[in-house]
Amino acid sequence: MKRIGIDLGGTNIAAGVWDDDSGRLLSKMSRKTRLPRPAEEIMQDMAAAAQEALAAAGLTAADAASLGVGCPGTCNLDTGVVEYANNLQFKQVPLRQRLQELTGLPVFLENDANAAALGEAVAGAARGAENCVCITLGTGVGGGILIGGKIYNGYNFAGAELGHIVIVVDGEACTCGRRGCWEAYASATALIRQTRAAMQQHPDSLLWQWAPTLDAVNGRTAFDAMRAGDAVGKQVVDRYIYYIACGLINVVNIFQPEVLCIGGGICHEGETLLAPLRRYIEQERYSKYSARQTRLTVASLGNDAGIIGAAVLALHQG
Amino acid sequence: MKRIGIDLGGTNIAAGVWDDDSGRLLSKMSRKTRLPRPAEEIMQDMAAAAQEALAAAGLTAADAASLGVGCPGTCNLDTGVVEYANNLQFKQVPLRQRLQELTGLPVFLENDANAAALGEAVAGAARGAENCVCITLGTGVGGGILIGGKIYNGYNFAGAELGHIVIVVDGEACTCGRRGCWEAYASATALIRQTRAAMQQHPDSLLWQWAPTLDAVNGRTAFDAMRAGDAVGKQVVDRYIYYIACGLINVVNIFQPEVLCIGGGICHEGETLLAPLRRYIEQERYSKYSARQTRLTVASLGNDAGIIGAAVLALHQG
Repeated sequence: MKRIGIDLGGTNIAAGVWDDDSGRLLSKMSRKTRLPRPAEEIMQDMAAAAQEALAAAGLTAADAASLGVGCPGTCNLDTGVVEYANNLQFKQVPLRQRLQELTGLPVFLENDANAAALGEAVAGAARGAENCVCITLGTGVGGGILIGGKIYNGYNFAGAELGHIVIVVDGEACTCGRRGCWEAYASATALIRQTRAAMQQHPDSLLWQWAPTLDAVNGRTAFDAMRAGDAVGKQVVDRYIYYIACGLINVVNIFQPEVLCIGGGICHEGETLLAPLRRYIEQERYSKYSARQTRLTVASLGNDAGIIGAAVLALHQG
Repeated sequence: MKRIGIDLGGTNIAAGVWDDDSGRLLSKMSRKTRLPRPAEEIMQDMAAAAQEALAAAGLTAADAASLGVGCPGTCNLDTGVVEYANNLQFKQVPLRQRLQELTGLPVFLENDANAAALGEAVAGAARGAENCVCITLGTGVGGGILIGGKIYNGYNFAGAELGHIVIVVDGEACTCGRRGCWEAYASATALIRQTRAAMQQHPDSLLWQWAPTLDAVNGRTAFDAMRAGDAVGKQVVDRYIYYIACGLINVVNIFQPEVLCIGGGICHEGETLLAPLRRYIEQERYSKYSARQTRLTVASLGNDAGIIGAAVLALHQG
């Protein structure tokens, strides 16, 4: 069966055609989301993107068995309504019904981070794991949970907000309204804030060579300065990795999943990131005496995870 | 069917006979665990306690369909072995096999906090909830998770250690080896430490009237002083409740369970505790815009939860 998956993001509407038999994406395409604009326009572009992805694979709507959508925010799976998605400015958008009208296909909906976790479990780094937790370290820190091969999203579909576990009581303000969330310490946004603070405290640091102004700081600045031998850059990186580890160990102690999968641009740092993370986890996990231990792995599908996970929703929710 | 449940604790071996048909405990009895002593002796006492509970209900082993045990630590459900239980000094104890030999009954094993959560879901404050998280605020902070009516214990049976979520990076030392665990701020042990620290800082506080020496401090001292009008006692209580709330909101953001059930001696404070907890949760939960919300409730079975949950394991693991 051929299935369409759409990963609806704040920047891009990414669509692809998935083939159940070969376990591969046959085509991919993308349109700009161009926020802010009305939900109706976005949904029309989603339907058009689905058509284009089909055409790119030499197919038509008659060849597709289903359309799946990964959408930010709280997606009510009973009603097919996106109840709230802050960055899209969606409130009570009947996404499933409208896309069914526009495409004539059965439509399946899920939160985007949950869909991406499903994608990694079906075709990526967590393949075959029945219990798995996926963490995306990006602008924010997102989570997706699979238990017994099924997405876990809670009583009201708003669960798995693992970035919004407080790790520092009364700490940094988080966009969610709490203080001290893991996201406020372990996201790329947090790393940039931490790098800037170190630069202001250390006018002599090599960090200023990698980023001549505070505006030029990005998620690689501290890592690059560290590799060039800068002590302040190393301090920033060490502390940032420690914050990531703190939250990952929390996740291990809560779920003891078979696979803990991390993704996001920071993972391009490879062993510079992974070696200390593994060490912290081994030192601190509650399950020190257990024969079986969680396997830490890096997401392998990149942006495709969300498309693939959305495409296969029909098989997992149905 | 009649089933025996045993809640094995560091202080007591509590046994009872559960009746599936009436949904009630027919009898209860208890022996002292008398630690430290060999696992074999403890298991013989468990078998004897099971016999006595049957006799107290006017039954014999022939009337019982199963024996369930809730045991602290990591219980491997595949092998029936208690891999590690710190307070019992158990390491690799083949509890299921030995108790089957001693009683002739099919034996079911589970971590004690998980069994207690199941008890509350079957017969207590979480009755009927398919997704529920139970938190016990005692000497430590324990957690039990039910998803789809089943106990969730992770890939290696060591999951649901919700007390060992760090809420203060680099904070107070925890018995688990980490720093800043929720347990180190929200347990009764933590409240006693916080009360003592406040007394040392405030020699003029009414706290000293309720506890003339630091050794006399218990989990009620600060609450009692607050009710008598003491400002320092109120500060201690306010901060302690804030720590409890921090971890509960984490649990809501992670699981969005239908029911969040809290137990432990502190819950006798009633609305003094619950009203601020509800307020914090409503203010801070990620799911502010969801129609359905987690219901906060107080465990209703007390120590019976562990016995009942153990007794019904046969129905839930089988």
